[in-house]
Amino acid sequence: MSKGERTREMIVARAAPLFNRRGYAGVSLSAIMEATGLEKGGIYRHFGSKEELSLVAFDHNMSALAERFEAAVHSHRNAVDRLKAILEVHREVAADHVVPGGCPILNTAVEADDTDPRLAERARKGMDDWIAMVTRIVHRGIERGEIRAETDPAALASTLFAAMEGAVLMARLHPDGAQMQHVLTHLDWYLESAVRA
Amino acid sequence: MSKGERTREMIVARAAPLFNRRGYAGVSLSAIMEATGLEKGGIYRHFGSKEELSLVAFDHNMSALAERFEAAVHSHRNAVDRLKAILEVHREVAADHVVPGGCPILNTAVEADDTDPRLAERARKGMDDWIAMVTRIVHRGIERGEIRAETDPAALASTLFAAMEGAVLMARLHPDGAQMQHVLTHLDWYLESAVRA
Repeated sequence: MSKGERTREMIVARAAPLFNRRGYAGVSLSAIMEATGLEKGGIYRHFGSKEELSLVAFDHNMSALAERFEAAVHSHRNAVDRLKAILEVHREVAADHVVPGGCPILNTAVEADDTDPRLAERARKGMDDWIAMVTRIVHRGIERGEIRAETDPAALASTLFAAMEGAVLMARLHPDGAQMQHVLTHLDWYLESAVRA
Repeated sequence: MSKGERTREMIVARAAPLFNRRGYAGVSLSAIMEATGLEKGGIYRHFGSKEELSLVAFDHNMSALAERFEAAVHSHRNAVDRLKAILEVHREVAADHVVPGGCPILNTAVEADDTDPRLAERARKGMDDWIAMVTRIVHRGIERGEIRAETDPAALASTLFAAMEGAVLMARLHPDGAQMQHVLTHLDWYLESAVRA
């Protein structure tokens, strides 16, 4: 990696938690200068605008998340166990253990839908990728006889995503994790009693 | 109402949708001046700071929401029917029919937890009030024999809140309402098959 590439990576790595915590509008250029130790010119050498940097920072946060989900999926073979491992990742996300500032999809969707269409598009893709991942697991689970045949894969995926993102939101306001646990207990019961074959 | 009071109310009514759509950091003083047709001095005569105005604007948005929930509760006598009416309000919230810009708790929780403790406190209270309202309905439903005795009121309330706020979030990214419908269908099935006595 050249020195320029290393500087670019450093800017992204330090700006990514800022954007995820404070939102696009909440991060000033001077906050990025402070976090990176660079002057304005040093940042603009690598990124044409704060918006451009925010898009790369979002991708950076999403890569960390995607890696964690992939590890969860590969930790089990049974489809229902895979789903449960995926849900557990959200508990870690809520506890700030995956990406500083919580879930980038949640954070970005709320801010960007009214302000920045390119960020909103990325959040939408992040959500769609999650739904597609879970839908595939459910389909395969039905084929293998691990999940009840009458299950609607897309409906189940949407319901799980809604409940987990809502739980992550609740943890922002009550970080003790009690409500996250209520939601996980409910979904666990549901997956065992109504989804597992 | 005096002229000053009317002006104050006008500022709140016009600033409230701005804050709910764009967030605290996303609303500049000049945007408030444009929306109200007032000069800087005219706004500062009524509110000491943008932060102070944002708190009153949040309360304004929450009143509209609380009124809608109250009407939903009083539209039915049976506890499970009351819960279902409450969930339907979230569909209206997601469709922007209650407060412009969607759910103020969702919007504020995501932005304010890292930036403004007074706004975060208000969002927390909004969520706690919702949970308390649903918990009371479930308690009463158990007493009246409308809801199964083994139901955990607080756990059910947290689960419903998480799922509905998650569904509102999903509707920000896919406004066609299909995913909201999946979530409502799931919760309807759950309330009928595992909660109703």
